[in-house]
Amino acid sequence: VSNIITLITDFGLNDPDVGVMKGVMLGISPQAVIVDISHAIEPQNIHQAAFVLSTAYQFFPQGTIHVVVVDPGVGSRRRAIILRTPSAYFVAPDNGVLSYILAPASATSYGPEPEERELGPELEAIVLTTPRFWRHPVSSTFHGRDIFAPVAASLSLGIPLHEFGEAVHSLLAFSPSRPFVDAAGATIGHIIYIDRFGNLITDVSGNDLPQGDVLIEICHRGIKGLSPSYAGGEELLALINSSGNLEIAAKNKSAAEMLKAKIGDEVRIKGGSSG
Amino acid sequence: VSNIITLITDFGLNDPDVGVMKGVMLGISPQAVIVDISHAIEPQNIHQAAFVLSTAYQFFPQGTIHVVVVDPGVGSRRRAIILRTPSAYFVAPDNGVLSYILAPASATSYGPEPEERELGPELEAIVLTTPRFWRHPVSSTFHGRDIFAPVAASLSLGIPLHEFGEAVHSLLAFSPSRPFVDAAGATIGHIIYIDRFGNLITDVSGNDLPQGDVLIEICHRGIKGLSPSYAGGEELLALINSSGNLEIAAKNKSAAEMLKAKIGDEVRIKGGSSG
Amino acid sequence: VSNIITLITDFGLNDPDVGVMKGVMLGISPQAVIVDISHAIEPQNIHQAAFVLSTAYQFFPQGTIHVVVVDPGVGSRRRAIILRTPSAYFVAPDNGVLSYILAPASATSYGPEPEERELGPELEAIVLTTPRFWRHPVSSTFHGRDIFAPVAASLSLGIPLHEFGEAVHSLLAFSPSRPFVDAAGATIGHIIYIDRFGNLITDVSGNDLPQGDVLIEICHRGIKGLSPSYAGGEELLALINSSGNLEIAAKNKSAAEMLKAKIGDEVRIKGGSSG
Repeated sequence: VSNIITLITDFGLNDPDVGVMKGVMLGISPQAVIVDISHAIEPQNIHQAAFVLSTAYQFFPQGTIHVVVVDPGVGSRRRAIILRTPSAYFVAPDNGVLSYILAPASATSYGPEPEERELGPELEAIVLTTPRFWRHPVSSTFHGRDIFAPVAASLSLGIPLHEFGEAVHSLLAFSPSRPFVDAAGATIGHIIYIDRFGNLITDVSGNDLPQGDVLIEICHRGIKGLSPSYAGGEELLALINSSGNLEIAAKNKSAAEMLKAKIGDEVRIKGGSSG
Repeated sequence: VSNIITLITDFGLNDPDVGVMKGVMLGISPQAVIVDISHAIEPQNIHQAAFVLSTAYQFFPQGTIHVVVVDPGVGSRRRAIILRTPSAYFVAPDNGVLSYILAPASATSYGPEPEERELGPELEAIVLTTPRFWRHPVSSTFHGRDIFAPVAASLSLGIPLHEFGEAVHSLLAFSPSRPFVDAAGATIGHIIYIDRFGNLITDVSGNDLPQGDVLIEICHRGIKGLSPSYAGGEELLALINSSGNLEIAAKNKSAAEMLKAKIGDEVRIKGGSSG
Repeated sequence: VSNIITLITDFGLNDPDVGVMKGVMLGISPQAVIVDISHAIEPQNIHQAAFVLSTAYQFFPQGTIHVVVVDPGVGSRRRAIILRTPSAYFVAPDNGVLSYILAPASATSYGPEPEERELGPELEAIVLTTPRFWRHPVSSTFHGRDIFAPVAASLSLGIPLHEFGEAVHSLLAFSPSRPFVDAAGATIGHIIYIDRFGNLITDVSGNDLPQGDVLIEICHRGIKGLSPSYAGGEELLALINSSGNLEIAAKNKSAAEMLKAKIGDEVRIKGGSSG
């Protein structure tokens, strides 16, 4: 296990909640190195949190502990969990925020609602049931402070996984958005994230694209071919981004504004010869 | 004393000021662990800074140094101080930002304007008058960089309190907002903070509430009883939050938007039997 | 070299990019202390990034590594560089973001477009051409993650400069905005930055001002004389700020809003006797 703990929450940075979680963690694990990934998840947007985590966790050292507190069910009977993979630990509510970790891209589609899913052979999960790792009294509204932060800090000290609670063999996960091929043979993908620059990130990966030239349609605009980089393209351009996803960008502008695009909008990709 | 230093300012995160303060501190105390609590205090809003500090400081380890730079009087003759309590250190201008630390909830009301207040028996305060702990030349506009940051960093190295200046026995404090009981026997509280989710935090603590059932009125809407958590309530709900305050929330929505509520608005609480 | 690495980017804090860069750096240099200066540079605004860097870097300890990723040319043939000065290291694209470091205030004016400029005698620069210090595969859109972060982290480990690539003797730099004296003998400066409080920072330094009393005109308003501090001035006031620049402020208000001022607007300063 690493002493690095990352944080993804919907708390924002205006309120003191993120600082309070860090105070609790440093009280337990003074050597912890805490890294913010994002605190700007839309309130209670589990899908957005899951996607942001999926693009970030693989760039952290082996054994990093990723804490995700986007938790509309705080205080209800939803479970709080630790998931261990061969490369990392995740501490989160069991509400779907770990869906991309649990669902490889090849998985059969299950839809946007979280469903119980069997863990793969390399994964191990614990439901947090051991109160001695929590901060007391446990509030019913801020488990980030009272459960997730102290558990993550204790985990970073090397305390064995099984001490935190009971092993479980399935967790809740939704099926991440995926492109499909329509009757005309075109690949239909979706915008799943819009970044600060207004770039449109889609659920289409490089492997989903037809061989050779491509013709891309989005918001009634056409884009011919892929650009190698932002600098090397036309005003409106498409490229495979640094996470391997098809991304629509506008040169030195916001593609989202230019196209009035939004999350969920379709992108249609045809092979060049059929265009 | 701890090597943890927290920061609360109204500098925002767009300008380089917060980074500059950290650079100055690390130059003096390379082992310092610096934690941001909030830099989004409204410009020069001493009351907001004081409240944010009050909800955060108690979750940090023993001996943590809390630096608050919300300082409309920078460059004037206002004093700069260190306050030591049994559990923590505070480095700040003497302008009321430490009011919640100085004024226990039971204190007689003094009103919103800071007044000179005698320190309690467990508190110790120093006015910063020893220039050798400052960065020179001292600007008249950025004491965060030139006085508060270097003093906090030196303090974290274990330099004794009395070396930083002269002991004083009173500091400026306003009296935090408190609920009162009106002629009809209802408890009248006030909204004192609105968080990122639009939840309305009031000055009413759990102990201020009448026994048994309660009926809450806010912005011409009624709420019957307290909910155990956000997940367990009606569309508009009230609960005792993680800081022990009565809080009005809307399920998966912003209560502030729904009610068009603002800081200072009244909340009226009656015992259920008299409702 | 220091283990402190600072970051200036236009990535914002909502997306995971900044966290990802930190993950990459901590994987190479676990003892690195990473400090955010600003991630709110306007997308691709090289002039703003250069100015923010210029006001911040000098407050960090000797040998600090400053990483600037404002990089409209990412994926093009623009060079990526390390610059060493007697006090610090800079890792950045060669696009002008280091202009204030390269161009002392006394330099002849070159205008706002970056031009090739000979390095002074105390400066040393390397073009990053050694792929073994990069993260592979190198994306064409996120050199912050794949080149600048790993290079900065390796540099903080003490790896000698020349191992990262080939020495160069000139870099691109624009000439920072400077005031001039007009035919009537008045000093004409410009607003170059507006901070969170709405204060207007100009390119006029204390040394540029005429001796004795001054009369300042900005946005059709006059200001007589300099104030010692924000607290000590009239409603609209001028002072020499903590970076040594002439700054126009409004007491407890935003001068930018009050005057509808914007970047590039002129400020006119006359000696008091000629006013």
